Amino acid sequence: MPTINAYAAPSASEPLAPTTIETRDVGPSDVRIAIAFAGICHSDIHTARDEWGGTRYPVVPGHEIAGTVAEIGSEVTKYQVGDRVGVGCFVDSCRECEPCLLGQEQYCEKGNVGTYNAIGSDGKPTTGGYAQEVVVDANYVLRIPDSLSLDVAAPLLCAGITTYSPLRHWGAGPGRRVAVIGLGGLGHVGVKIAHAMGAEVSVISQSLKKMEDGLRLGASNYYATDDPDTFKALRGKFDLILNTVSANFDINKYMSMLAINGTLVELGLPEKPISVRAFSLVSNRRSLAGSMIGGIAETQEMLDFCAEHNIGAEIEVISADQINEAYERVVASDVRYRFVIDNTTL
Amino acid sequence: MPTINAYAAPSASEPLAPTTIETRDVGPSDVRIAIAFAGICHSDIHTARDEWGGTRYPVVPGHEIAGTVAEIGSEVTKYQVGDRVGVGCFVDSCRECEPCLLGQEQYCEKGNVGTYNAIGSDGKPTTGGYAQEVVVDANYVLRIPDSLSLDVAAPLLCAGITTYSPLRHWGAGPGRRVAVIGLGGLGHVGVKIAHAMGAEVSVISQSLKKMEDGLRLGASNYYATDDPDTFKALRGKFDLILNTVSANFDINKYMSMLAINGTLVELGLPEKPISVRAFSLVSNRRSLAGSMIGGIAETQEMLDFCAEHNIGAEIEVISADQINEAYERVVASDVRYRFVIDNTTL
Repeated sequence: MPTINAYAAPSASEPLAPTTIETRDVGPSDVRIAIAFAGICHSDIHTARDEWGGTRYPVVPGHEIAGTVAEIGSEVTKYQVGDRVGVGCFVDSCRECEPCLLGQEQYCEKGNVGTYNAIGSDGKPTTGGYAQEVVVDANYVLRIPDSLSLDVAAPLLCAGITTYSPLRHWGAGPGRRVAVIGLGGLGHVGVKIAHAMGAEVSVISQSLKKMEDGLRLGASNYYATDDPDTFKALRGKFDLILNTVSANFDINKYMSMLAINGTLVELGLPEKPISVRAFSLVSNRRSLAGSMIGGIAETQEMLDFCAEHNIGAEIEVISADQINEAYERVVASDVRYRFVIDNTTL
Repeated sequence: MPTINAYAAPSASEPLAPTTIETRDVGPSDVRIAIAFAGICHSDIHTARDEWGGTRYPVVPGHEIAGTVAEIGSEVTKYQVGDRVGVGCFVDSCRECEPCLLGQEQYCEKGNVGTYNAIGSDGKPTTGGYAQEVVVDANYVLRIPDSLSLDVAAPLLCAGITTYSPLRHWGAGPGRRVAVIGLGGLGHVGVKIAHAMGAEVSVISQSLKKMEDGLRLGASNYYATDDPDTFKALRGKFDLILNTVSANFDINKYMSMLAINGTLVELGLPEKPISVRAFSLVSNRRSLAGSMIGGIAETQEMLDFCAEHNIGAEIEVISADQINEAYERVVASDVRYRFVIDNTTL
């Protein structure tokens, strides 16, 4: 069992710190990945700080992983040493339930195995991307097309698929008016993807601070909710709204922005239940929906789509010793738009 | 302006009583309908008692109207005197907005003109089905196929289209598992229609009291929520759930019954907002949606579908002097399954 460098949270109240961990030996269907870059997702912070409960310490976060194959198991034919690959939010699932058979392993009825803070096939805690290496069953590994740099590809494994999947599912494309609430880690990739799909994209943000960015990333329109006229002006305007903001706010004001047959999709998990008036749903036959990352096949489709359209995340590359500082900045929404760890600095 | 007999609520606190009203003269595009039967919808009661606010008194309720054409305007070509026709929940709309142009006049942006308690094209309050006659623009009149009796057809104009439209929109059909919450006026027609569409239908009711009826009407399964095991047993079971019950309850328990990509559709307007956990939406990519009656073309499609499949409402025909008693029984859920007024008794 090889020993590698990693960054881990020792407890909920301590900062992340350098450590060493052991990865499992490469099984017949596994690949060992030398991690080049790992994105920092807000979920990493929630888990490191046990804000969702259930964190097993020490925890090595990171589920936006990009690197190259360093070793393959005896039965692996899909990948070869040196291949450019990625790993997203889960590394295994039951492979037998209806969602798994539909290729929507993210909804595995038995619960998929998280990339970190879960129990892997060897019975030990899984460890994520803040490490030099990770060993993952090849069926849960994605191929990163050559034209995508590994650093900007890493965040696509979570932020990319989380927005791509609902945009595809709810038919974003030419003639469709899509709004993205929040221009952050998820939102900025969502704008790029929706624009590449051919939809007319609007950003709905608290202020116009990031407007220039939004328009550059592919939005046609940019609206600020600190202007009360925004809600009036946008009544019935959108076919699809992706809400990337996890905070609780009055969802009815945003539901009213939906055109007939429109859908607002929640991508985050606000702490409190969402309070929606039946009238917000019944008028205009609106839907309030949710979506969670995407399946393995769909994640591959997303990566291929992003490569074809030259879409990567907008990133700020940091060294491992900047992780704690980066966490503070993520919490303060002070990042444009994703921190990515250079794993050679571990 | 012909004077006709009607039943009206003089105020929110008084029972309905016999009265006479004047209908408008038949305009070029109007038809005068001799009403044979009018269904009693719970909305009639809410309006008569001003429970939703905004009732103009005296009000003549009734938006489940079946009868025959008694007179046609100079420009009407679609109908002839003697034709069997119906009128549903609205009698006009702007005809210019996107929903109207899409044939979904129920979502008219300017608000459609209600069959009663609205202001008609003559500037006077519209009057509903508890009357000997009604004058309606021919574009908002439906044809009732010969094979459908007028008495069982009347409730289809509201209860029928309210369930048909979401069943059609969300793809009820062979291989799809549909549940109907509540076996009342709406629910019992919903079961018949979903079954005729080829879906596997389940009823979710408070108790098993109406189970025999439910199975006879086309349900394959019948579940009681007074059995706590029901919620456990039905986890992830349904592709589509129609909620015909307007009472506030914990929607999350019902959301958990949805399979991957499933939708729960609210057809009523519970008084308080619906409190839905984001997790209920995000897991299994579920949707919480709403739907309101249907457009004119779709209502005609529904009537033709019901005729083809021999579907009418299960009714109890009453005379006009039983309306107030019927109201009490509707409020007490003591009707199987719709009261229909014999308008010859007015």
